[in-house]
Amino acid sequence: MSRQANRGTESKKMNSELFTLTYGALVTQLCKDYENDEDVNKQLDKMGYNIGVRLIEDFLARSNVGRCHDFRETADVIAKVAFKMYLGITPSVTNWSAAGDEFSLILENNPLVDFVELPDNHSSLIYSNLLCGVLRGALEMVQMAIDVKFVQDTLKGDNVTEIRMKFVKRIEENLPAGEE
Amino acid sequence: MSRQANRGTESKKMNSELFTLTYGALVTQLCKDYENDEDVNKQLDKMGYNIGVRLIEDFLARSNVGRCHDFRETADVIAKVAFKMYLGITPSVTNWSAAGDEFSLILENNPLVDFVELPDNHSSLIYSNLLCGVLRGALEMVQMAIDVKFVQDTLKGDNVTEIRMKFVKRIEENLPAGEE
Repeated sequence: MSRQANRGTESKKMNSELFTLTYGALVTQLCKDYENDEDVNKQLDKMGYNIGVRLIEDFLARSNVGRCHDFRETADVIAKVAFKMYLGITPSVTNWSAAGDEFSLILENNPLVDFVELPDNHSSLIYSNLLCGVLRGALEMVQMAIDVKFVQDTLKGDNVTEIRMKFVKRIEENLPAGEE
Repeated sequence: MSRQANRGTESKKMNSELFTLTYGALVTQLCKDYENDEDVNKQLDKMGYNIGVRLIEDFLARSNVGRCHDFRETADVIAKVAFKMYLGITPSVTNWSAAGDEFSLILENNPLVDFVELPDNHSSLIYSNLLCGVLRGALEMVQMAIDVKFVQDTLKGDNVTEIRMKFVKRIEENLPAGEE
C-alpha cells in the first residue's frame, strides 16, 4: 500500500502503440506455449482477470467515481471513464436487453489490434480476450459478477468490435456479525 | 501500409497502469516458459527488438523529428520525445563518456515496475529488459548500431534506474549502384 500511496494520483500519459506491440508479443508467446486457440483465449482471460483485480484499485483512486446505483450507470462509467483512461477510446453503449441486464460496448477502433492481422491458422483466437478478463476481474472487486465476451471483432472481418456484458449477480459481501 | 495510413497521426492517450500490468503478465509468462533468468532477459530483449523495429515508423510519423546530426541530439530525442510519448516520462541524459559515444538515461520513475517486487529466486532477472531491445531495434532502423543495457535498477535496490547506451557504429546503407 505504501507504494500505491507514493504514486499518488499522478498519471503517466502515454501513446498506445508501445502497449499494442507489447500486447502482441504476449499473445504471440501464448500461441507458442499453448496447443490451441481455445487455451490461449482462456489464458488471456485469466491474465486479464488478475489484471482487473489489481487495476480496479487504481481506477477508483484516480477516477473519483463513487458507487454506481444501477447497471446503466456502471455501463457509462466503464465506457466513458475506464476505457478512456486506460485505452484512450470511448466505446458506445448499446443493445440493452429488455431486462436491462445486458448491454454491448461497441469499439469503433480497438487499439489492441492496430497492427494486427490474424493468421489463417488462428481463426479461433479471441485476440483481445484479455479485456474481457480485465472487466470481469475489476467488476468482481466491486461485488458484481458479470459475463463478458466478444460477439463481434474487426479482426474477424466484422465492421466493429462488440463486447457483450451480462449482469449475473450481485456478490454479497461477507459482513462480520453485528455490521449491516 | 493502408492500415497505417488509416490510423494517420491520431494518437490514443492512455494511462500507463494497464500497460504496466500487461507487461507484468508477459514477464511472468516468460519466467514460466524459460529455465533461468538469463534466458528470460534474452527473450525480453529480442521481443523488444522486434517492437522497436516496428515502433520507429510510428515514432517518425508522429514526432516529425528529422535526422539527428550527432549522438547528443539522438540522446535528447530519445529522452525528451520518445520516452515522453510512449512511457509518459522524461529521463535525464547524463554520464557522457569523454569520447561522446556513451551516455546514460536516468529514470527517476520507471512505469514498468510500478507494482513490481522481484521475488528472491529471480535476482538475475532484468525485468524491464524489453526497453533495451526496443531502443536497439528502433535505432538500428535509423542506421545506428547501439549497445543498450541496464546498469542500475530500482528493482535491485538502486536509487534510480539507469540505462547505458553506447554507440557502436553507423550502419551503412546498401545503396543501389549509381545513387549517392
